[in-house]
Amino acid sequence: MKIIIVGATGTIGKKVTAALENDHELVKVGSKSGDVQADITSSKSIEAMYKQIGAFDALICTAGGAHFGPLATMTAADFQKGLNDKLLGQVNLVLIGQHHINAKGSFTLSSGLLSDDPNRNCANLAAVNSAINGFVRGAAIELENGVRLNAVSPGLVEDSADLLPAFPGFALTKMDVVVRAYLKSVLGAQTGQVYAAV
Amino acid sequence: MKIIIVGATGTIGKKVTAALENDHELVKVGSKSGDVQADITSSKSIEAMYKQIGAFDALICTAGGAHFGPLATMTAADFQKGLNDKLLGQVNLVLIGQHHINAKGSFTLSSGLLSDDPNRNCANLAAVNSAINGFVRGAAIELENGVRLNAVSPGLVEDSADLLPAFPGFALTKMDVVVRAYLKSVLGAQTGQVYAAV
Repeated sequence: MKIIIVGATGTIGKKVTAALENDHELVKVGSKSGDVQADITSSKSIEAMYKQIGAFDALICTAGGAHFGPLATMTAADFQKGLNDKLLGQVNLVLIGQHHINAKGSFTLSSGLLSDDPNRNCANLAAVNSAINGFVRGAAIELENGVRLNAVSPGLVEDSADLLPAFPGFALTKMDVVVRAYLKSVLGAQTGQVYAAV
Repeated sequence: MKIIIVGATGTIGKKVTAALENDHELVKVGSKSGDVQADITSSKSIEAMYKQIGAFDALICTAGGAHFGPLATMTAADFQKGLNDKLLGQVNLVLIGQHHINAKGSFTLSSGLLSDDPNRNCANLAAVNSAINGFVRGAAIELENGVRLNAVSPGLVEDSADLLPAFPGFALTKMDVVVRAYLKSVLGAQTGQVYAAV
C-alpha cells in the first residue's frame, strides 16, 4: 500500500511511521523535512504535494497546530490560527485528496481528547478537535469509490509527558495504543469513526 | 434582565424573542434589522455593538451561516465560509463579550443536530456545529465572575419544514422544544452544556 504520512517526524508521526514502513511504501511529508515538503495551510502547497506524489492508497495526517492560551485574552486572530492550521489544513487534505486517492483508499486525520475533556487554555483546541470529529462524521458518508475517512483522537501521549504539569489529573496514553488506532483506521474497514486512543 | 438576541428576526430567533420580551429588556440585533445592527463576521462590528448596547446580562445568538453543498466539489474557500460566520462569529461574540457582560451573566450559542447526525451536503455544518459544542465545553470552564456559556443544538425545526425533502428520515422538532432549551440556558444555572433540542 502506498501511504502518505503528513507530520512523519512529529511525536506521534514517527511512531506510526515506524509501525508501517516495513510493510508499506511510505511517503513522508513534513513542512521542512521528509520525502516531500508541504504547508497544509496552503491549498496550492497541498495540490503540489498530491501532484508530486501521484496516486496513493492512504493518507495519515498527524500534523496541525492550534492556539493554546487563556480565554480571557484570546482574540479572533488567535482562534483563527487553529482553524487555519489543524482544522482547515486537515480538511483540505481530504477536499483536495479525494480527487487523487485510489478507490478503496482511506484518509486518517488527528483530533484529540480535549474535544470532550477540555482543560484551561484549550478553548481553541476543544473547538478544533471537535470540528475535525464532526467533519469526519459528515464527510465520510459522501466520499465515493469506497474511500474511507476516520479520525484518531489521542489523549496526552507518554512521549509528551513534559506537558503533564499543564494537564492536572490527565492520564498518559501509551504510544502503542495511539499507533494501533491509526493502524485500525488505515488497515481496517470502518469509516466515519472517531477512534479515542486514551 | 437585559438580554441581547443576535438573529432576533430569524426562524428560531423570533420565537425566542417572543418568549422573553414580556419579562425582560431585549436588545434585538440583526445584520440589517433590529434595534442594533451588527455583522458577526467582523470583530470591529461586534466591538461597536457591545459599546452601543453597554452592560448586559445575557446574550443569545441564533444567527450564523455555513456552507451547504456536496463534498465532491467543496473547496477550502467554501469550507471557510462556515468557519468565518457561524463558528468564528459566535466564538467572537463570547471572546469580546466576556469583557462587557455583567457578573453572573450568560452566553447561549446555537449549533445543530448535524454535528452528530449528518446528512448529504452537510460536511461543513457537521464540522462547524461540532466546533461550537467543543468551544462551549472548553471556554465555559475559563469564564470568570460566574459567567456561564451553553449551546442549544436544535434539530430540523417545524418552522423550516420546507427543508424536509433534503433531510430524508429526519424528524421535525417543535418550536416550543427549541425555545425552552434557550430559556433553560438563559434562566437556569448550568454551564458548559450542549442542549440537544430535538
